[in-house]
Amino acid sequence: MAVTFWSTTSCVFKSTITRGLRRYGTPATVKAVLKSDPLEPDEPSVQTEIPGPRSRELLKELDTIQNTKAVHFFVDYERSQGNYLTDVDGNVILDLYTQIASVPIGYNHPRLLDALMKKENRATFVNRPALGVYPPSDLSSRLKNALLSVAPPGLNQVMTMACGACSVEHSQKAMFIAYQRRQRGGKPPSIKELQSCLEGKPPGSPNLSVLSFKNGLHGRTMGALAVTHAKWALKLDFPVPDWPCASFPTLQYPLDQFVRENRAEEDRCLNEVKERIHAWEKRNCPVAGIIVEPIQSEGGDNHATPYFFQCLQDIAKECEIPLMIDEVQTGCGATGKFWAHEHWDLENAPDIVCFSKKMLTGGFYYKDHLRPEQGYRIFNTWLGDPSKLIFLEEVVNLIKEEGLLVQVQDTGSYLINGLYDMQNKYPGLLSRARGIGTFCSIDVKDADTRDKILHKLIQRGINLGPCGSVSIRFRPTLLLSRNHVDIFIDTFDSVIAELQP
Amino acid sequence: MAVTFWSTTSCVFKSTITRGLRRYGTPATVKAVLKSDPLEPDEPSVQTEIPGPRSRELLKELDTIQNTKAVHFFVDYERSQGNYLTDVDGNVILDLYTQIASVPIGYNHPRLLDALMKKENRATFVNRPALGVYPPSDLSSRLKNALLSVAPPGLNQVMTMACGACSVEHSQKAMFIAYQRRQRGGKPPSIKELQSCLEGKPPGSPNLSVLSFKNGLHGRTMGALAVTHAKWALKLDFPVPDWPCASFPTLQYPLDQFVRENRAEEDRCLNEVKERIHAWEKRNCPVAGIIVEPIQSEGGDNHATPYFFQCLQDIAKECEIPLMIDEVQTGCGATGKFWAHEHWDLENAPDIVCFSKKMLTGGFYYKDHLRPEQGYRIFNTWLGDPSKLIFLEEVVNLIKEEGLLVQVQDTGSYLINGLYDMQNKYPGLLSRARGIGTFCSIDVKDADTRDKILHKLIQRGINLGPCGSVSIRFRPTLLLSRNHVDIFIDTFDSVIAELQP
Repeated sequence: MAVTFWSTTSCVFKSTITRGLRRYGTPATVKAVLKSDPLEPDEPSVQTEIPGPRSRELLKELDTIQNTKAVHFFVDYERSQGNYLTDVDGNVILDLYTQIASVPIGYNHPRLLDALMKKENRATFVNRPALGVYPPSDLSSRLKNALLSVAPPGLNQVMTMACGACSVEHSQKAMFIAYQRRQRGGKPPSIKELQSCLEGKPPGSPNLSVLSFKNGLHGRTMGALAVTHAKWALKLDFPVPDWPCASFPTLQYPLDQFVRENRAEEDRCLNEVKERIHAWEKRNCPVAGIIVEPIQSEGGDNHATPYFFQCLQDIAKECEIPLMIDEVQTGCGATGKFWAHEHWDLENAPDIVCFSKKMLTGGFYYKDHLRPEQGYRIFNTWLGDPSKLIFLEEVVNLIKEEGLLVQVQDTGSYLINGLYDMQNKYPGLLSRARGIGTFCSIDVKDADTRDKILHKLIQRGINLGPCGSVSIRFRPTLLLSRNHVDIFIDTFDSVIAELQP
Repeated sequence: MAVTFWSTTSCVFKSTITRGLRRYGTPATVKAVLKSDPLEPDEPSVQTEIPGPRSRELLKELDTIQNTKAVHFFVDYERSQGNYLTDVDGNVILDLYTQIASVPIGYNHPRLLDALMKKENRATFVNRPALGVYPPSDLSSRLKNALLSVAPPGLNQVMTMACGACSVEHSQKAMFIAYQRRQRGGKPPSIKELQSCLEGKPPGSPNLSVLSFKNGLHGRTMGALAVTHAKWALKLDFPVPDWPCASFPTLQYPLDQFVRENRAEEDRCLNEVKERIHAWEKRNCPVAGIIVEPIQSEGGDNHATPYFFQCLQDIAKECEIPLMIDEVQTGCGATGKFWAHEHWDLENAPDIVCFSKKMLTGGFYYKDHLRPEQGYRIFNTWLGDPSKLIFLEEVVNLIKEEGLLVQVQDTGSYLINGLYDMQNKYPGLLSRARGIGTFCSIDVKDADTRDKILHKLIQRGINLGPCGSVSIRFRPTLLLSRNHVDIFIDTFDSVIAELQP
């Protein structure tokens, strides 16, 4: 199941790939690698310290308006192209982090600019409708072309939302509605339920929970925070419900060399899941659903094997609760399949799959039984923004036409081989290289050194992000090619050589 | 205080206003009324039943993808103009509800189309940044021109968010952070706090609450739902915390004829506020802030007097907690001042003012002491969408240049006089006409009759919304003129005449 039908589209050979073929050879699965944005720069070019003087000036100004401690540097988006950012000081930066994993086909892609300029799209940009009440004439076709054409097989329902957190919140609400509907056995809610819910009291506002995993991140609104456990900065001081939370497997890499150990670790975590579900049932706070990331991203790029997710689905089925996969960061092709969970060979589709980031709009797919019966239950004024569907449709078409999933598979295997090489070369410093597609990461011996490496990389014009306590994560566009990987590996190598005693 | 400096800009006389002058004369505050979109139709024009055959066809299609029970009809946004929607069956509808109060200057306003077409804006539309990490070079100037130039006096800090619910959620988080900072007396958080918060347990995840009001609506994510009490459809089945909730005044209208009675009612509610704050303190779930709408909208267009809000601010000050005003629906000029709370003559600015809808972007203004000290505390990937700031800047400039607040004041007084007239004419049927600016409403004797009137109005090409159990609410654009009011009143009158026995 879960065959991504366009992934075998053959690619056009381009002349820009010579560099990318020298290091690790051509895998059998791909004939050629293409660089899809002919306008992008050839390589990074750094003129100033980063952040440079102009960035620092702008930072001072912005700091009078809001806390700016997360700002890295200011960007000239007009001059950015493809995989390359240009900052306000004129530095040209190879961007392997892409706005926290949210740029699918690079900066200023001609297809997106064309879509913006089309006369027939103008009304969608300037008139934002209340989608759930006064939808535009083309809503169904946009949902079909942009979202259903890439829906996980088995999921035919979809709602759009403005961001990832709202997608998670409303997915959870769909689970709670379904749970209570089953409890009522088809009867309508009682007057007491209708009244008590307004005060946030049972029975209308029942004591229910969602099971999640340690080190997971699902968003920063209260319902999303209740299933988030990645970092204190996300949660400190906030009155968040104490919902059940199981360990996520801490595996050893490469996965195929630690099959027995990893299986034991996954079984331990699966037992915790079962134990927590029963414990919360006993506490009179039953679990209405399970939420999990395919790869825990912010929490440290923690992988689990298909076995783990298959068993998780079995547990959910046994408990008659939905399994919800949060593909906000993993979705839209980064793992070489459109959805990361397509790697798991699940018996059935997950019950809910939520998305955002590279999908450009938030939202979630869901099975029919999770569709609310009444109107206005999963609802807000905007329900997303149809202008984002215009761009997403272009992205999806480009992925299909240019066989970008195959490119991600190829570039990904080239990148992970490069990372293996590096950790073999610097065994005391680097370890645990891991990844699917270009969704890769590698660990550094300690946080200080990791941060030092990231700092040195950006000074050489390569932008990457941290995750977990000691990891570096790669979140490039779908247009990353071997050429870009070579540039990165060369720079990474020389930066690390500088650190060696 | 709170003087909106451009509200005295004089308006240009146009010839299209003759109709609008016949009924209620010209108030002293305004010299003329203008119709600002010369391209809009002259009047409604209805060809089919609404929803018409094409709408019904599209509904069937959309219903295969999601629950469509809230859908009214499908819109041809390309053919909509100014205050007029054109639906997919070619019906031209005067829109007095504007996508649940979220269209500031009408459909396809030339200024918005121009902004969309400008070459220098393209990069902002096609490259959505992680605003908090890699901001665009023009972020400060956009925030200044679009948001700070209309900030409530005394509020110099602003964060953008993607929607209203997220704005409320993150505002609440700013309140919780500030509350706990005060509790710590300047000390850093303890290791125990940093660890326990990850599990949603005290002391890191403290038992805190926000006080809100019965019939209020602040959004549909869990933290926003915790302060929402308007309708069961919003809350049923969801595990929402039981936070303190006081009565919002149920006043008698017109306010100036029931001063004594209304004062007593407001005092009753204020006492409830104090009582609830003490009760939750005793329950070990202290109140970290108060949230209130200037006019409870979804809950039934419930007004309170400046006295109520002044006292509420006094209570908040006494308890050393912030007062947060939710101006998602009332903000951006609808009441004839840019912010509804400017009508209250508060001693100081409210501590937080959140916005969305007509502001096109979500977000919140806040006082300096509510600014988080660390980075990544009030944060998410996108933090809104700077392309919405481009449009908002145009809206704000148009409001200033064309004196739209004066127009809203004038059209509003013309509209409320029309509604008074109607309730005098149909005393058994209509009552409680009320409003500030064009933010008006009127009650119908029962819900059935209200819904029948709304149905008949849309069949004549006038779109309005319900609120509360028996109210009709007006949420027009800021470009509504006397001419439009005349069209509405004429139609309203004939619709009601039909209902009379």
